[in-house]
Amino acid sequence: MDSYYITIGRQYGSGGKEIGERLASFLGIPFYDKELLKVASAGSGLDEEIFNQHDEKPASSFFYAFSSGASSAGVTGLPINHKVFLAQFDAIRDIAQKGSCVIIGRCADYALEDFENVINIFIYADMEFKKQRALSYGVPENKLEDAIIKTDKKRAGYYNFYSGKKWGEKGSYDLLINSGKLGIEKTAALLAEYVNLRF
Amino acid sequence: MDSYYITIGRQYGSGGKEIGERLASFLGIPFYDKELLKVASAGSGLDEEIFNQHDEKPASSFFYAFSSGASSAGVTGLPINHKVFLAQFDAIRDIAQKGSCVIIGRCADYALEDFENVINIFIYADMEFKKQRALSYGVPENKLEDAIIKTDKKRAGYYNFYSGKKWGEKGSYDLLINSGKLGIEKTAALLAEYVNLRF
Repeated sequence: MDSYYITIGRQYGSGGKEIGERLASFLGIPFYDKELLKVASAGSGLDEEIFNQHDEKPASSFFYAFSSGASSAGVTGLPINHKVFLAQFDAIRDIAQKGSCVIIGRCADYALEDFENVINIFIYADMEFKKQRALSYGVPENKLEDAIIKTDKKRAGYYNFYSGKKWGEKGSYDLLINSGKLGIEKTAALLAEYVNLRF
Repeated sequence: MDSYYITIGRQYGSGGKEIGERLASFLGIPFYDKELLKVASAGSGLDEEIFNQHDEKPASSFFYAFSSGASSAGVTGLPINHKVFLAQFDAIRDIAQKGSCVIIGRCADYALEDFENVINIFIYADMEFKKQRALSYGVPENKLEDAIIKTDKKRAGYYNFYSGKKWGEKGSYDLLINSGKLGIEKTAALLAEYVNLRF
């Protein structure tokens, strides 16, 4: 069949990355999360560290944008965070040209808006489930809720600013699922079934 | 296994009722949509027509509530729309006591909040898909979008007022799905698979 693309938006601690990895493995197609930053870095000539710094952060003030690494990246005119966004945007489209894949976050649904066979998924979970997972990522116990709320606020800011859509709201996705109800493995299995039914 | 319950919130024109019917048929369990009104009417002594009039309509002003049929229903003290809500609430819990079922709308998720094995689903779709379906229900072509927006506004008002949750927002559900992407039959098949994975 033709290539197809699965984009996954996810709340911090919902297990979106692990679900995406398992889904890609079920389907036998490549998976991109942080891997995207390397591709975008190579394609843009910007240092990979700059992508790590600006990864899924909301568009900040012009002052901040120009003052944090813009000179080292040889930016001409454009704030560094916009340049980082555009390099990721191009990287996502280049990757998709090569064939089917699963891409986590980074406005991939927006970058692939004019592609055929795109499935846009959002993964969320109850706070308690997310806290348990964040704890397993190494977040200190007294900072769990704070880390979850702050990370999601950044992701929402980034997504809403660049895509013009609303992060985590149903109008932006084909399917939204609470991963805490089925757990990681079964959520991935259900999504694989969804893909099978779609194509 | 123990009884389980599937509640389905749905946008007007999304095919939620048909999807629920097929899902109930796949699972071999009873299905309740308008059927609920008959059960609630029998249990409350209020006329079924009153349930039809107030079905999933938001709590209106006290003046309206008291002036529209309250006297004929022998209401003592409580506005008729609240009495209708309470009768449906009781009917949903009575039905659930008898065994597994699929229930469409009417704050069933809220009525069953303290039951075990409840799956809460929301079905939505793009406007074009909903307009095509509303046309097939007999809505005049020049009134399609208006009918969709107004009906959903009423459903949201009813749900938000009584449940204290937010209609159509992910925090209120386990799974939200755009029925226009898979179509009616396959959406029902995916939901059946979800139920299988849950229990």
